[in-house]
Amino acid sequence: MKLHTFFRSSASYRVRIALNLKQLPYEAVAVHLSKNGGEQHSSEFQALNPQELLPVLQDEGEVLTQSLAILEYLEERYPNPALLPDSTAGRARVRALSLMIACEIHPLNNRRVLQYLSEQLHVDAEQKNRWYRHWVGLGLAALEKRLAQDACTGRFCHGDTPGMADCCLVPQIYNAQRFECDLSAFPTVMRIFDECMGLEAFAAAGPARQFDAA
Amino acid sequence: MKLHTFFRSSASYRVRIALNLKQLPYEAVAVHLSKNGGEQHSSEFQALNPQELLPVLQDEGEVLTQSLAILEYLEERYPNPALLPDSTAGRARVRALSLMIACEIHPLNNRRVLQYLSEQLHVDAEQKNRWYRHWVGLGLAALEKRLAQDACTGRFCHGDTPGMADCCLVPQIYNAQRFECDLSAFPTVMRIFDECMGLEAFAAAGPARQFDAA
Repeated sequence: MKLHTFFRSSASYRVRIALNLKQLPYEAVAVHLSKNGGEQHSSEFQALNPQELLPVLQDEGEVLTQSLAILEYLEERYPNPALLPDSTAGRARVRALSLMIACEIHPLNNRRVLQYLSEQLHVDAEQKNRWYRHWVGLGLAALEKRLAQDACTGRFCHGDTPGMADCCLVPQIYNAQRFECDLSAFPTVMRIFDECMGLEAFAAAGPARQFDAA
Repeated sequence: MKLHTFFRSSASYRVRIALNLKQLPYEAVAVHLSKNGGEQHSSEFQALNPQELLPVLQDEGEVLTQSLAILEYLEERYPNPALLPDSTAGRARVRALSLMIACEIHPLNNRRVLQYLSEQLHVDAEQKNRWYRHWVGLGLAALEKRLAQDACTGRFCHGDTPGMADCCLVPQIYNAQRFECDLSAFPTVMRIFDECMGLEAFAAAGPARQFDAA
């Protein structure tokens, strides 16, 4: 298995956690998102993924893109340990929690969007930070409410074993900390983050421990 | 089954298509996104979905949020006709196509983001339209490449029956047309859009045909 990754790409980070949780060994191929004008724009990488986004996972001849689609693929192809619960309602809950991060927070704050704000809209650093923190704050407030009020929340986002939603939560919190967001209003989210970071599968997937970390 | 929906909400539109394709009758409850300061912010709606976003589907005591999680739920609970193909690789492909729209295009262009651009960043109408068209153009260019070059593409995004990716594609094109995006560079995407719109399941889910259409 070959994972095209960048240490700081939070979508790649999600997949690294899932691969570790499932104890699937993989070869990591670094795609540097800023060096050489962004290696994701190279014709070589475009041939793999016309969307020019990380991560890409190659497995058994398949070229897989979009981190959540990759997590679902891994779940179907390598079901143990499971990242989704057994019940249809539980699965819907975990997917919704994952999408609350993957659709509602992360897309607004990734590198290309922040670049557009600076370069095209000439937004200054302070406004850009406020933009970042606005979407993180709004998204995490909703996540906190759901996690705090729901009996299905356990040590992790869903019950007492880590799963798909935790694979999404940890990279988002890592990013929020990098941008110095105030996270004190999200105690349940942070309790789960700490719980995850106590596990080697999560810790080993962290940006600082990647071979391509700057 | 009860769907909390707004005629122009494109995430609601995805779910309306899926419900129609699966021939599942439902009661539609209108949540007006701009009247009364945005009915999604009412305490009544917040109790259903703390994220204050549409759609919400209520089914058999479950309260389901996030359109793609709802589509997966419907697929598991009401498998026929299927919105995902049988093979793991095919399912990964359809999910990736869906997420290319749901994570990479739509979140950047929805109502609350456009509002933030105007109200917080004082971006003018022309810059806002350029922002909108930039993300639509970038996202659809990647989608076009994938659909055009891939043998799995058929009458629809995947093969000759409509599925999850088509449920995402149609509302995105509807929105792009509303914002007068130039779509001439995306012939495969538009061929599939037209193919979908020839089916009553898609046509009946369209904004203009909703009971709450303004």
